This record gives sequence, structure tokens and C-alpha cells, in this order.
Amino acid sequence: MADFEGGYGCAVGLLTYDCFDNIEEFVQEAIDSGHDFVATPIVHSKYSRVLECKAGDSWRDAPVYDRGDLVLRKAQWSDAVAGSLSEWIQLDSKDDDIRINSELAFKQEVAFACHLGLFTVITPRLVPGTSCINMARVINHLVTGMSVTQMWVHVLMDNQHAAWRQWNQFRGLTENNPKIGVVLELPAVLPEDDMLLDAWFAEPVKAVIVPSEIFISNPKGYPVLSKRHQSFVKKLMRRMQPQMIVTVPTTQIHASATPSSYQEYIHYLHRNLPAMDQVEEFASGYQDYLQAPLQPLMDNLDNNMYETFERDPIKYQEYEKAVYHALLDRVEHGSDYVTKIMVVGAGRGPLVNCCLRAADKAERKVQLYALEKNPNAFVTLQNAKAEEWHDRVTLIFADMRKWKPDTKIDILVSELLGSFGDNELSPECLDGAQKFLKDDGISIPASYTAYAAPMASSKLYNEVAAYKDLVHFETPYVVMFQQVCELAPSKALWTFEHPNLVIPKDQDPTNNLHNARYSRVQFTVSDKEDMVMHGISGYFEAVLYKHVKISIHPETHSPGMFSWFPIFFPIRTPMQIPKGSTVTLDFWRVSDAKKVWYEWSGTVESDQGSHTAVLPIHNVGGRSYWVGL
Amino acid sequence: MADFEGGYGCAVGLLTYDCFDNIEEFVQEAIDSGHDFVATPIVHSKYSRVLECKAGDSWRDAPVYDRGDLVLRKAQWSDAVAGSLSEWIQLDSKDDDIRINSELAFKQEVAFACHLGLFTVITPRLVPGTSCINMARVINHLVTGMSVTQMWVHVLMDNQHAAWRQWNQFRGLTENNPKIGVVLELPAVLPEDDMLLDAWFAEPVKAVIVPSEIFISNPKGYPVLSKRHQSFVKKLMRRMQPQMIVTVPTTQIHASATPSSYQEYIHYLHRNLPAMDQVEEFASGYQDYLQAPLQPLMDNLDNNMYETFERDPIKYQEYEKAVYHALLDRVEHGSDYVTKIMVVGAGRGPLVNCCLRAADKAERKVQLYALEKNPNAFVTLQNAKAEEWHDRVTLIFADMRKWKPDTKIDILVSELLGSFGDNELSPECLDGAQKFLKDDGISIPASYTAYAAPMASSKLYNEVAAYKDLVHFETPYVVMFQQVCELAPSKALWTFEHPNLVIPKDQDPTNNLHNARYSRVQFTVSDKEDMVMHGISGYFEAVLYKHVKISIHPETHSPGMFSWFPIFFPIRTPMQIPKGSTVTLDFWRVSDAKKVWYEWSGTVESDQGSHTAVLPIHNVGGRSYWVGL
Repeated sequence: MADFEGGYGCAVGLLTYDCFDNIEEFVQEAIDSGHDFVATPIVHSKYSRVLECKAGDSWRDAPVYDRGDLVLRKAQWSDAVAGSLSEWIQLDSKDDDIRINSELAFKQEVAFACHLGLFTVITPRLVPGTSCINMARVINHLVTGMSVTQMWVHVLMDNQHAAWRQWNQFRGLTENNPKIGVVLELPAVLPEDDMLLDAWFAEPVKAVIVPSEIFISNPKGYPVLSKRHQSFVKKLMRRMQPQMIVTVPTTQIHASATPSSYQEYIHYLHRNLPAMDQVEEFASGYQDYLQAPLQPLMDNLDNNMYETFERDPIKYQEYEKAVYHALLDRVEHGSDYVTKIMVVGAGRGPLVNCCLRAADKAERKVQLYALEKNPNAFVTLQNAKAEEWHDRVTLIFADMRKWKPDTKIDILVSELLGSFGDNELSPECLDGAQKFLKDDGISIPASYTAYAAPMASSKLYNEVAAYKDLVHFETPYVVMFQQVCELAPSKALWTFEHPNLVIPKDQDPTNNLHNARYSRVQFTVSDKEDMVMHGISGYFEAVLYKHVKISIHPETHSPGMFSWFPIFFPIRTPMQIPKGSTVTLDFWRVSDAKKVWYEWSGTVESDQGSHTAVLPIHNVGGRSYWVGL
Repeated sequence: MADFEGGYGCAVGLLTYDCFDNIEEFVQEAIDSGHDFVATPIVHSKYSRVLECKAGDSWRDAPVYDRGDLVLRKAQWSDAVAGSLSEWIQLDSKDDDIRINSELAFKQEVAFACHLGLFTVITPRLVPGTSCINMARVINHLVTGMSVTQMWVHVLMDNQHAAWRQWNQFRGLTENNPKIGVVLELPAVLPEDDMLLDAWFAEPVKAVIVPSEIFISNPKGYPVLSKRHQSFVKKLMRRMQPQMIVTVPTTQIHASATPSSYQEYIHYLHRNLPAMDQVEEFASGYQDYLQAPLQPLMDNLDNNMYETFERDPIKYQEYEKAVYHALLDRVEHGSDYVTKIMVVGAGRGPLVNCCLRAADKAERKVQLYALEKNPNAFVTLQNAKAEEWHDRVTLIFADMRKWKPDTKIDILVSELLGSFGDNELSPECLDGAQKFLKDDGISIPASYTAYAAPMASSKLYNEVAAYKDLVHFETPYVVMFQQVCELAPSKALWTFEHPNLVIPKDQDPTNNLHNARYSRVQFTVSDKEDMVMHGISGYFEAVLYKHVKISIHPETHSPGMFSWFPIFFPIRTPMQIPKGSTVTLDFWRVSDAKKVWYEWSGTVESDQGSHTAVLPIHNVGGRSYWVGL
């Protein structure tokens, strides 16, 4: 199946529950009719006789198959076969003997599937309203010994979210075990509430079953999916890259259908996925990948990093617009006044070019200053000055927090923002730089605001948990979200404004308390359905100048801007969010003489005022994560 | 204060909120009137002026006291002073400046208290209905740097459990930080619901404030406590060994009271605590101490261990009674029949003596067999045979699971039970031994049942968490409970019966599946109040013979029997239990060829059917804890 797992193609399998005596023939027919693999029982249902075993029966000592008990007997087809585990197995039976025999038979079947080297086994369908707790225990233990063969839990999606609730319990019991995936069977009618669909993007959906019965006939009698099904399947394909599985009906239910029609339609949907936009293309390969946030004050960016960030088509356009409008507002047309603009943290000079273009367009006279602390980038600035800018730009090699200017400037331009706005210490840097600014000087950006929202993502939780230490659970990451479900629109935590009038004129701040922040935001996720939370998503919105803004906040995201992925704050324990409850997030920005850090915490309160979950405060005293000053 | 912390005496302090100019005098008077220490403000309330500071004020750069701002100026009295932190500090103010200044002032005050070497500082009282989240963050961080000085959070107990709920949130936010204690102030009216009192036994109550206003006058006009207050205070003294703190009223509210009366009464209560019973005496020093359960099959008990267990006054009395009744039932008075009794796991022989005494008392003829696998204990058996038993007892050196007998016996007597009944593998041992037994033979014990209940205990949770690894969270411990709150009466999980008729006659079992168990028990903790759960308590009840039973189950505990402490199953994350919700515990007893282990899990479900908490299954596949076969 390796060919299909890269996300370039789409594997479509054919599912049967019949126990074929001649499985080779069935597999051959399936492949001949264009399917990439089959999903079939491994063991004949007649083997269910073993459920009757009692203590003392020798089968219990060493379960063994007769050849005739097996549908799959040889490893020959193993790379084209997903094995369905026997539906008659009752791991949660209240009858001790049946439960014990079921466990033996289940283990026997999985062991045989692993022996054959099948790429996956699929559990019997979870049945909402019945217990799956012993099944969770058995599978949780079994997967520790499975390497090649995957374990997929079969979930039939429903309108009432009951299947998700049961899977949620199963996932909780098995502690988000990354070796356990979901095969999601779609129902004829999808839930109306989009959140019930979105919830699955946060789950480890490895495969999707689209039974032939849920196809409708198009005017020509061919099977197609409803618009709503199409849309959901396409989103699943794009975000989860699942294996797809269809069935072929035993009687003709779509007039013109052949055994190939169902897989052809799925393949057709996949071929016609909308092309990736610029941001998606840029992010390709980075989805759900945890990056430690930059430490641009302590570390110097390398050339590659500058190169990447300079490619953003939107960011510099907006900066140019901001400078342009600031110049128009500040200086009358035709004036001889030379506006002094300083770019602090000029890097390799993209903002300098923005300013020059803005000045040309605005027809205003300007003198540019470019300040940079990175000696390597400074060489590039020197090249640009020698080759392009000449006298229009003065270069200054210095740390903006320490440099003493001999002249004051009109407009201070910087691009020091991180995914969470202030997380790369823009406030502290600009506090130091604002003493270069005239009393009526302008800072671009003028302000920026951090946002946060609760989110679900089994994937991201597992990525963090895989490190098995506290430090990684208390570190925010820059992540391009993909297999996630935002549980509520994000809310503003705090804002920084520049210049900061609290700081005495012409002085460096003597402490950093004015950049401390504490904010509490509350969310009602759903009045109707239970959900689960795995972490917190963070964004920023910045006002560059008046109406000129940039944003990575989902509701206002600057189209096409790719310089910033969102930020992800993990939580150490997933929190259940019962319907109607309130999620409260507390966020702090704290600093001491050497560093700045965040602490965060979350609580869930029921609609009756009981705390149902209280997270410990994360990153106490910056013990796990901080940004150096 | 070291004198009082051992639990032998009881320190009583005098609390004042007045800011005395001459603190030396106040301390001297307090001590002269029989108090052991004082609790006093450290800083004058006039220092609250710093709340008005703004950015740029130099105080913010380096907070410093004027000498006149301080109540406590010298370290001289430090070992007799608990410092009350300023009540005017508003760590959770919504005003940024007030909150930031409060944090600076709070840290300054704690730092000064640490500098003086005070034995503790006491926070301003938590105010239910207001936020304590920022206070939690500040304290959580501060205590990491405190070594000598303790941090006590002042909680005023109330009728409505609101104070507990707030403390519960505080404790959750600070992750049961063992450096943070509670000083519990008693109200004039204690809650009617005993559970609201009991809840505090699970909390780290380090001190108890008994304000003079809640004393009532006895007929002679002296201050005394109500019966209900007395009872609660005594329980607190016995279980928590808290420091006690009283106040002295400024006006005479109890006609005959002197400034000494309040402390005298508290000292009087402490002197008159009921004497410890035999079990308490035996357990003394072991309370809340986590012991790894025995592995008697893999390891041999040492002589000390035998010695300790043989001292139990009740256990052997009940065994003797069981054998006596079995003999009476089995053999007619005057018969010449010689009943063969075998003690398996005879150790140093106490059960052999029981059987001989029972036979003498019943006037029945017996032949005793004593089987033991521990070569060291076997020497003691040989001594006893040589010196006392002679021909009445035959010794067998063997493992009961493997020995092949040449004669069958009437009564099989064993004492293989652990705190959870089957946790020392009594079922597996007796399965092997029952082939010695005649068809109508009797096993003593005849059956045993394991019990479990949800419990709260910040102390036990912390003891486990201190190991900072998964293994300790997935290991059950034998513990004498003290600082705990049982959240509901325990429920039966499963029973083992002997002889086990499922095993084919005269054979060894070929597998151990008949000793696998799975059980689910559900509890409603409280319909009225929220609680929290930190772990699971486990017990057993055993039927030795018919009506002769032994039990460590709280409701049926055999009086005076001390051989078994309860068992404690930790959980990895404390679970909030909102009022009206249902706690479900799932327990498994699992085995493979070499070992037996338990797995356990818990869920909380709201009265609306939402899961509010789902614990991962603990000890998957016996990865952390098992008992070797």
C-alpha cells in the first residue's frame, strides 16, 4: 500500500463481509475491476463455535485454526488485503466464558493477520450504547506487539454524535495510542451540525468506508455522492489522506452501475480535488509538524530563513501600503520635507525596499536608516547599499535596544512579530527603539493582538506526548494545522501598542512590568454535543497603520500570506468538554531580567457550575520554555 | 516548632491581625499566656500605598521597605512567628497596575519572611466567588524557591462547600504542589453533611484556626467548643497533626475567660484524645506510607515478617474457630476417624497450632500435614515438630503447586490472602493444592472477595507523584490510610471460591483463564456537592468457613485484626467528580504464563450522560506492576 500513503494518489479498496471459499478469485476480480485492495474477513464465521468453549477445553490452552476455518490462508495476497476481524467476537460480553473465549479468538486472529503480514486489521464495528471498555484494554495491549500490521477501529458515523462519544471514550481509555487508527464508515445522512463532521478531523482517521447504499443515482443512473457527502469526503481526502473503501451491492441499486463504478467515482473525486492555494503549497510537508518557535534575539536567522520569509507575496505589500499611507498623512504633497524612516531589524533589507517603493509611489522625500544586529545579514545590506540604495539608505550595525541615536526619526518600521504576536519579543525590542522616534513619530506596526482558542487534535497531542517529558508539554510550537478541529472562534488575549507612552520619554524602560500580561477568555464549545480538547491554538492580528492590517487569525487571515503558521500550546491532559460547559483559558506573559515566557491553564465548568476539569498551570516560572532577552 | 511536629504534643498559636508597633511585647505576652507561637502580620497595612504605583515609579524596579513599614523587623522571634501576608494584596485584581503591584508586594513580603526564617507564611484568606487563579500562579512559582519557610493557604471553611471548591481549583492549578499547605479556619456552624467535613482529611491541612468567636460558654463561663466542633477538631488532631491557632477576643465574650483560656482548652482537647486502639498502635508510623505489596511466591518472607503477622490477635482466633466448626460438621463426636488436615504455606507454623487447638477443643482426632516452600521457615517448623508437635504433624518441604501427594486430605488450610484478597496469588496456589483434597474436602478459606472504592487523598497522590514516573502510578500499594476521604462505600469486584470445581479432578489446571476477572462498579459520590478523586482503595472479605469470616472492608472490618492494611491503586490524573455524577471503575485481573497483574481504569459521567473524565487504562499488559507466578 506504500504507493498510496504519500498522499499523491488515493487507494480505493473493496469491502466484503462474505466469507469466500475462494478468496484468490475475489481478490483478482476486485483488482480487475479497478480496486487497489480488498477488505475481507480473515476467519470463517463458523469458527464462532469456539465461543462455546468452557474451562478445561483444550482450545483454551492453545487456540489453533483448522485450515477450513480460514478465509485467508496464505500470505500471497497480504499487501492487497485489509483483514476484517470477526464480527461475532464479543469482547465486552457479560458472560465470562464468552468474553474470555472472545479475547482468545481475537488475539488469535490478530496474531494470524500479523503472521500473514496484512497491512491492517479492522475491528468489529463499535456499537454505541454498549460497552467497549474490555475491547479497549485488549487492543491497547495487543498493539504493543504489532509492527507492520495496523489496527483500525471501525466506527459507523451517526447523526447523534454517539459514535464519536464512544470512540472518544475508547481513545481516552487507550490514551490516544498512536498505533490505533479509525476507519470511519459514512452514513446515508450526514449530521447537520458541521461541528459533528469537523470533530473527525481531530481523530486518527486512517480509512473511510463509503458503502454503495449511500450513493445516489445521477440522471444517467450512475452512482454519485450527494453534495454534502462529496464535500466531506473531499475534506477528508485533503486533510487526512485516508485509504478509501467502497462496497459493491449484491443487487443492482444504481441502474447503470458496474462493479467498477463506485471506486471510479471515488478516484474521480480525488482527481478533482481543488488545486492547492499558495499558502497550502508553501505549507506542504509542514502540516501538523511541530516547530520550536524562533529565538531571533538570542540566535541569528540564517540566510535560508530570510529567503523563505521574503517570499511572502502579501506581507511586504501590506507594509508598503502602510508606509505609503503614513507618508501621505504625514507630509503634504510637494513638500521638501525629508521623512526619516528607520527599519529596525532590517535583515537582508526587504522592508527597506518596501519603504523606498512606498516613498516613490507617494512622491515623498525620504531618508532611510536600516538597523540590524545580525553581522551576516549586515553583509547583504552592505551589498544592497553599494549596488542599489547608495545614499538613500544609511546602515547601522547595532542592537536596537542599546544603540544611542544622534538624530530622531519620523517612522519606525519593524517586522518582529511571531505567530502569537509578541512571542518573538517585539514589545521589548520596540520599547528600546522608540527613543529614536520623534514625539509624534509613527511605529509600523502600531499594535498587535494575541488570540487563543481551544482545539482538538489527537495528532498534535500525540506528537507532543511522544517526547514523554514535561518540557515538551510546556512548550508552544509553530504548526501548520491540518488534522485539527477548532472548537470555537478564537478570542483576543491582549494587545501591545507602539510607541508605548508609559515609558518615560527618551529613556530605556527600567523594568519590563509594562509588558506583563494576564488574560482570561471563556468559550462555550457546544450546547448540544460533547467534545474533547487537546490543546490551544494561538494567532495574532496586527495593525500596521490605521486600516492596513495583517492577520493570521482564522476569521480575518490575510489571503495568501504564508509567513506565519499558527502557534500551538499543548496541554498535559486532554480535557473532556461536556455539552453546555464553559472552557476557561488563563494566559500569562511573564518576564524576569533575562527572559520572557508564557504560562497557561484551562478549566472546564459544567452548566451547573461544577469544575469538571482543572489543568495545572503550565510552564511554571518558565521552567520548560522561555524566550531569551 | 520542631518539638510539636512529631505529633506527640500540640502547638497552639495566637493569631492577631493587628499591626503591633511593639511586636516583641505581643510575642512575650502570648508566650506568657501559654501560647507556643504567634501568627501576626509581617508588614504594616500602611504599606498598601504601593498599590498606587504606576509604570516608571522606582519602587517597581526594586521594591524596598522602610523600617517603619514592618511589623516584624528582626529574625529574633522567627521560630515563634507565623507571618500573615498582607490582606490588602489583590493578586487577582482586574486592574493591571494593582495586580502587578500586588504581585511585587507579595513576593517582597514572602522574600522577607524567608529572610527572617519564619517557619511559615499564611496567605490572605481565599474568598469564594472571586478568582484565585493568578494567586495560584504566583504562589506556585514562589514556593519553588522556598526551603525552610512553609506556605499555607488560608481557607475559611463554610457550610456550602464553596471554600473547598475554591481550594480544589487552587490545588488543581498548582498540581497538588506538596509545598503548599492549608490553614483551615473553622466557622461557627459546621456543615451538616459529614462528607463536607471528611473532605478536608484528604487535603494538606497543616494548621487549624479556631477563632474565639466560635467558642461557646460552659456553665462556668469558660470558653468551650460545641460537641460537633470538638469531634471534628479531635479528628483533625488525630489524623492531620495540625498546628492549632486561636484568637483572643478584644472584648470579653466568655464571662470567665482569660487570655490563656482558649489555648488551654485546645491543649485540653489534645491531651484527652482517645487512646489508640490496638490496630492504631500497630499502624503507628505506617500511616499513609506506601508499601509495595509482597511477592510471597517469588520472594521468601523473612523472620521479622512472620513474627509481625503472627502477632495478630484476631486472625488466628478466627482460623481456629473455622477449623473447629469444620471438624464438628465433618466428624461425629466420639468417632475414631482421623481427620487429615493440611496447612499449605505453613510458614513458621501458627496455623498448625490453630488446627491442633481446634482439634483439642472439638475433641476430634486429627493428623496434621504442614507444607512449606521457604527453606528458612522450614527450619522453624522442624524445631516445632521436634519440640512440640512430634507425630501429630508431618512436614513437607515443597511448592504446593507442584507437589504430588500420596494421600488425600479432608481439610486444606491456608493463609495466602493479600490486602486485595487474591493479590498474593492465593487462587493460583490453591488451584494447585486442591488435588490433595478429597472430593468432599474443605478449603479454609472457602472464598474471598475483592472490594474497591473511589477515594480522595492529596497526600497519597503526592507520595506517588513524587517518583515522577509512570511505573509508580501503575503500582498498587499497601497503605494504612490516614489523610484520606473515602468517597463512597466500597463495592465487591469479584470472588474466588475453593475448591474450584472448574478444574478437572486430580489435575493441574492447564491454563489460568478461570482466574481471570473483569468487573465494573459504579458509585454516586454526592448529589449535592462536588468532590475530587485521587485513587482507589481496595479491601477483601473472606469466608473462612460458613459463618466464620475475616474482613478488612471498612463496613465489616474484623475488630482488632491488623495483619492487613488496605491496598491503594493510584490514578495518574486526579478526577473531578461533579455533584450528581457517576464514577465507574473498571478492574481486570489478568495473567499470562509467568505473572498475574491488575489493570484499572475510571470514568466520570455527568447526570446528563456526558463523560467528564476518562482515565487511560492503567498498567497495560502488566507493564508497571505484576506478581510473579
